[in-house]
Amino acid sequence: MVSKLKIALIQFLGSTSKQQNISRVCELIRQAASTGARLIVLPEIWNSPYGVKYFSQYAETIPNGETTDALSACARQTKTYLVGGSIPERDGDKLYNTATVYDPDGKLLGKYRKVHLFDIDIPGKITFKESDALSPGQQLFTFDIDQKYRIGLGICYDLRFPMLASLYSNRQCHVLLYPGAFNMTTGPVHWELLLRGRALDNQMYVAGISPAHDEQSDYKSWGHTTLVDPWGTIMSKCEMNEDVIYGDIDLEHLNTIRSQLPYLSQQRTDVYTLVDKKKDD
Amino acid sequence: MVSKLKIALIQFLGSTSKQQNISRVCELIRQAASTGARLIVLPEIWNSPYGVKYFSQYAETIPNGETTDALSACARQTKTYLVGGSIPERDGDKLYNTATVYDPDGKLLGKYRKVHLFDIDIPGKITFKESDALSPGQQLFTFDIDQKYRIGLGICYDLRFPMLASLYSNRQCHVLLYPGAFNMTTGPVHWELLLRGRALDNQMYVAGISPAHDEQSDYKSWGHTTLVDPWGTIMSKCEMNEDVIYGDIDLEHLNTIRSQLPYLSQQRTDVYTLVDKKKDD
Repeated sequence: MVSKLKIALIQFLGSTSKQQNISRVCELIRQAASTGARLIVLPEIWNSPYGVKYFSQYAETIPNGETTDALSACARQTKTYLVGGSIPERDGDKLYNTATVYDPDGKLLGKYRKVHLFDIDIPGKITFKESDALSPGQQLFTFDIDQKYRIGLGICYDLRFPMLASLYSNRQCHVLLYPGAFNMTTGPVHWELLLRGRALDNQMYVAGISPAHDEQSDYKSWGHTTLVDPWGTIMSKCEMNEDVIYGDIDLEHLNTIRSQLPYLSQQRTDVYTLVDKKKDD
Repeated sequence: MVSKLKIALIQFLGSTSKQQNISRVCELIRQAASTGARLIVLPEIWNSPYGVKYFSQYAETIPNGETTDALSACARQTKTYLVGGSIPERDGDKLYNTATVYDPDGKLLGKYRKVHLFDIDIPGKITFKESDALSPGQQLFTFDIDQKYRIGLGICYDLRFPMLASLYSNRQCHVLLYPGAFNMTTGPVHWELLLRGRALDNQMYVAGISPAHDEQSDYKSWGHTTLVDPWGTIMSKCEMNEDVIYGDIDLEHLNTIRSQLPYLSQQRTDVYTLVDKKKDD
């Protein structure tokens, strides 16, 4: 019997009301779960507007904040694995851009803090300095479903770093999830290219999960939530409006591709080695 | 004053006659040089048909073979830097897939032997086992032009390995050249994606230089020689027939992109390190 894992990616349109965001996201999670999706993923910074001036105001401790309490309850109620996109996290006097993951009992499996902060400056187009407000994460995060599917997490700007994806590949991941809000400058040129490139280079399923585009917002997201297969082929994508897209993670398909083009096992480790410095943390 | 380096990529249609291939290639090199190109690049295995059964018959020592003698003379006559695509090289009882590089005096600057051999098996589509005939290279190769432009080399299947491109990035390259003959199965789906991905990930100019498509040949190349800029944008490409394409390497453009999106310098070397094991060979 061929088994597959149905995944749902939620391109959520947020507002400035955290309570309203939580309630609408839970509605979308229930909707996705009702179609049979077992793994549901939210976008980057969905309970707050995206901008350094908002992070502190919307930040919560993890766990025991209102957002993570709601996500845990949603996972438990829908019996799904839930990747709660990311939210601003407060830990002592530091803030992080943090993704949380729940199992179908609502248990927090762990969290991933964005490792590469988004500091860019394209004059006249977009300047953003996330490190003005946030601290960077220090390690990778993976979780398993059915002791069969291994899933790794990155957030937005992390997508630009091929080494991070390669580390996840070396940790035997089958799926890479990037909640991420690319913008109207870099989104149209780089979002799809990066997602397809990571998928092909690592022969993994790769998803980019964006907030919906909001003309009223300070930060205008490109949207275009996308799911790519291990051959680099786009399985599903949407435009800029609020939407939910679906796809099946199929390990048989993945393994066929890896045996036909076995480049992951043909790496020249006598010429180069990628050292995973946080492997045993 | 803004200076640029004009590059020409020759998509050559080979035959089974080595002498005819050499003579036609020299004609195309002179044609490219006459337009002002200072760096000229040939495709993979252009003096021989591409196939394990041909390599031994067409192989030469480097230097002092008829092909490399002709390339050296061509570089000297046209006063160009010439990357002689690749040819089958004989060294003792071993064969290699080897690219040679000449300066405008015709001096051999060095050679690059394909590091990742092409062993794939897509049933009913394409099966190829380069390692049946060839030995793999053991190191990278770069050369400089005007003490300003640094150029790195890979060959075909090497393009699938992101670490190799990252090593060249760490060695401060501005341009990566991949003579390469993708086929009619993987070419349409992966060739352009890989070239654009390497260019964007490493903020370098990247070129893929293919033989022209030959319906009569055992191995049918995808062609589509392509030049990509450090933003991931295609600057020039052709279709499947014999053709020469041109573009300008512009370090000011490259440096602007690297300062706007400074991800090469934002790598988390405390989380991962790519070790270049042959750096000091």
